Amino acid sequence: MHPDLVPLAFLLGTWEGRGEGGYPTIEPFSYLEVVTFSHVGKPFLAYQQRTRHPQTEVPMHAETGYWRPVGERGLEVLLAHPTGVVEVYEGTVERTRIEIRTTSVTCTRTAKDVRALTRSIEVEGDTLRYDLAMAAVGQPLTHHLHAELHRR
Amino acid sequence: MHPDLVPLAFLLGTWEGRGEGGYPTIEPFSYLEVVTFSHVGKPFLAYQQRTRHPQTEVPMHAETGYWRPVGERGLEVLLAHPTGVVEVYEGTVERTRIEIRTTSVTCTRTAKDVRALTRSIEVEGDTLRYDLAMAAVGQPLTHHLHAELHRR
Repeated sequence: MHPDLVPLAFLLGTWEGRGEGGYPTIEPFSYLEVVTFSHVGKPFLAYQQRTRHPQTEVPMHAETGYWRPVGERGLEVLLAHPTGVVEVYEGTVERTRIEIRTTSVTCTRTAKDVRALTRSIEVEGDTLRYDLAMAAVGQPLTHHLHAELHRR
Repeated sequence: MHPDLVPLAFLLGTWEGRGEGGYPTIEPFSYLEVVTFSHVGKPFLAYQQRTRHPQTEVPMHAETGYWRPVGERGLEVLLAHPTGVVEVYEGTVERTRIEIRTTSVTCTRTAKDVRALTRSIEVEGDTLRYDLAMAAVGQPLTHHLHAELHRR
């Protein structure tokens, strides 16, 4: 592993679990999720995420990108979404807790209007919990997703 | 396969081969490349790309994202790079030829300054050739990469 990745090593692996979503414009929903953080010896983590319906197992959301440590406690995250959105985040790593916030969200002309997101991630041993808030489709920054995942 | 994906179905699969790169600010270089286009039944292709050194096999570049057909001939592409860059492209699909151009490039504060890219892709049977031009680090849009890949 590249030495710059040490502060993010607690994320490595494949994580599986269940999440709950809500937003003022939609009905509450649940999902099953698989997240993988991997590395190839360079100073970044490759990230892949997929969710599926808890009963039908039909694919729901997906996202992919890279997590870049910056110094001892800094973090940059680059994400692409099949919904027509790319996001750039900056934030901090404190032991096994991550807080990131978008510095840029860009949507294609056919995408829903997403303006800003925040993500909090905390890992305790082999359990990862995250919360995501989103400002989109005219709503202010509002809690959208919470999930608890377990390292495979 | 989702019916909206039919115009992009010629991309599906795993492609391997060799490329050549150049730019006014660097020495020419060669690379080995693996590209995968896959789908999960939804109206987009998931895309993963990795290159490695032709002699040492050490990982070089990587990129990941999604390709979204828009109508019969339109295309939107969302890409994230571990170099700290996200790109949004729009373009066209004519039979098995794709032309896309960035509508947005966003870099983190620690990334090299990338301003714009164009990509041309042509598939003939199981051969895929692409060219990529880039405006970056103060240079105008300049040819950067050419590769020929073969479907596995």
